[in-house]
Amino acid sequence: MTENLKYLQTVDGNTWLVEDEAENLKINYRINEVVYQERSPFQHVMVVDSPVFGRMLVLDGIVQTTSLDGHIYNEMITHVPLSIHPNPKRVLIIGGGDCGAAREVTKYEQVEEIDMVEIDELVVKACKEHLTEVSGNLSDPRVNFIFDDGIKHVKKYKDHYDVVIVDSSDPIGPATQLFERSFYVDIHAALKEDGLMVCQSQSPIFHMHILKQTYGYIQELFPISKVYTAVVPTYPGGMWSFTLGSKKYEQVMSDQFDKDTKYVSQDILKQCFALPAFLQAALK
Amino acid sequence: MTENLKYLQTVDGNTWLVEDEAENLKINYRINEVVYQERSPFQHVMVVDSPVFGRMLVLDGIVQTTSLDGHIYNEMITHVPLSIHPNPKRVLIIGGGDCGAAREVTKYEQVEEIDMVEIDELVVKACKEHLTEVSGNLSDPRVNFIFDDGIKHVKKYKDHYDVVIVDSSDPIGPATQLFERSFYVDIHAALKEDGLMVCQSQSPIFHMHILKQTYGYIQELFPISKVYTAVVPTYPGGMWSFTLGSKKYEQVMSDQFDKDTKYVSQDILKQCFALPAFLQAALK
Repeated sequence: MTENLKYLQTVDGNTWLVEDEAENLKINYRINEVVYQERSPFQHVMVVDSPVFGRMLVLDGIVQTTSLDGHIYNEMITHVPLSIHPNPKRVLIIGGGDCGAAREVTKYEQVEEIDMVEIDELVVKACKEHLTEVSGNLSDPRVNFIFDDGIKHVKKYKDHYDVVIVDSSDPIGPATQLFERSFYVDIHAALKEDGLMVCQSQSPIFHMHILKQTYGYIQELFPISKVYTAVVPTYPGGMWSFTLGSKKYEQVMSDQFDKDTKYVSQDILKQCFALPAFLQAALK
Repeated sequence: MTENLKYLQTVDGNTWLVEDEAENLKINYRINEVVYQERSPFQHVMVVDSPVFGRMLVLDGIVQTTSLDGHIYNEMITHVPLSIHPNPKRVLIIGGGDCGAAREVTKYEQVEEIDMVEIDELVVKACKEHLTEVSGNLSDPRVNFIFDDGIKHVKKYKDHYDVVIVDSSDPIGPATQLFERSFYVDIHAALKEDGLMVCQSQSPIFHMHILKQTYGYIQELFPISKVYTAVVPTYPGGMWSFTLGSKKYEQVMSDQFDKDTKYVSQDILKQCFALPAFLQAALK
């Protein structure tokens, strides 16, 4: 261990990753091994191996994705928008350093370019080398790795992308600005006239204010706006939300879905926009 | 504190409930106050107050239900079967000591009798007094509280109940036998010729063997068998499964659903049987 990290603790010979949720809830994962750790200019990047979740990507002490359930999030943030847009050619992924979202997008033959703009090159390096269950052997020539600020990148383009996927981390640290209104304005401008976007919009149980704010911005900018949910076991509250903004297309072509996936199915595509009563009420 | 419990720990003046998931995952909930604790002949019964989840029912150190999310589980285990049976008159709840399932069943005017068979009277007492957000002011005259072994109770009845709801705790301790084949055989016999049953069948992420076993028993005994899921934030993995066995009725009459609920909606009733790809594959 090169650093003394407060979220790695050793008790009775066992190492534990202690994830601190707002001082009132701590999730302790027993760790077999710290596989990789390095401090980037943006954050502390770590890959650990655990008995329950397998390999886990941990940024500044917060679990981002795991071998056990990383596919759920990555399949949901990609296959839903790509089952709505009938002919996506240029796709932009902002964030998504674990490479899992880009990997899912490569399953669409009609997609010609995938720009993946991740601010932290070290995250991509760590996941490509040490978290292959999530990142896959991602070497598709259509993927352009761009190590830059997503905010800056999106400002450069007008009427360019068919689909924009905002795969950010929590709205603290480097991702804070990805939850601001001006960012969605720029995404709207970067999309073609029939383009659509999706972003992760946090937990409806624990971060309802973020979800409501994000949905509000997107609803104001796009003629079509919708929230869908999925179960992500390693995120607090289990239920996770995604918000979609679309300029033209609305229908999910679930019957045509034929990709090789572990979570997303035709049924899941049909039902993911069905919201619990409390969430329907909150978004009214 | 009358007892020294290994799952209650004090660190720097704060009290934490430490929930131990198979030695590899620990969830620590900060506790404001232990509101109630008593040891029954069956288990240690405790109600605590926490900043994130509000009041929590804790049996032998395992969180069973909370003010924050108890309604999700209780609404899902009741409104789904009661939206399939067109005319439920006699309903049996096995377990369900938090009274939340019985409370939901009382929302159906056509139900004439609700037998609630809970082995541990102390759980009902604790929840009625100290967990009113879940138990409600449950004083409906149609509810018969029967403090007995569910296994024994169900053996006494033939062709009697319209709906049986098995609201058990985990298959350890007092609830072990509620996951055995012979119990489902007795439930089948206790149901009328057009009756149906539902049971909680654990997490598809962490207890797939229990879910597959339960689904196997029910599939063998009933002409109609189906699995549905919900998100329960305080249960490990977030996603929780329920298995339905029905002698006759299959269709969910979601369009007629009009109860006052926080989670269940017409949309949720329509979509809850849509399963992720891995679960569809596992149940084949």
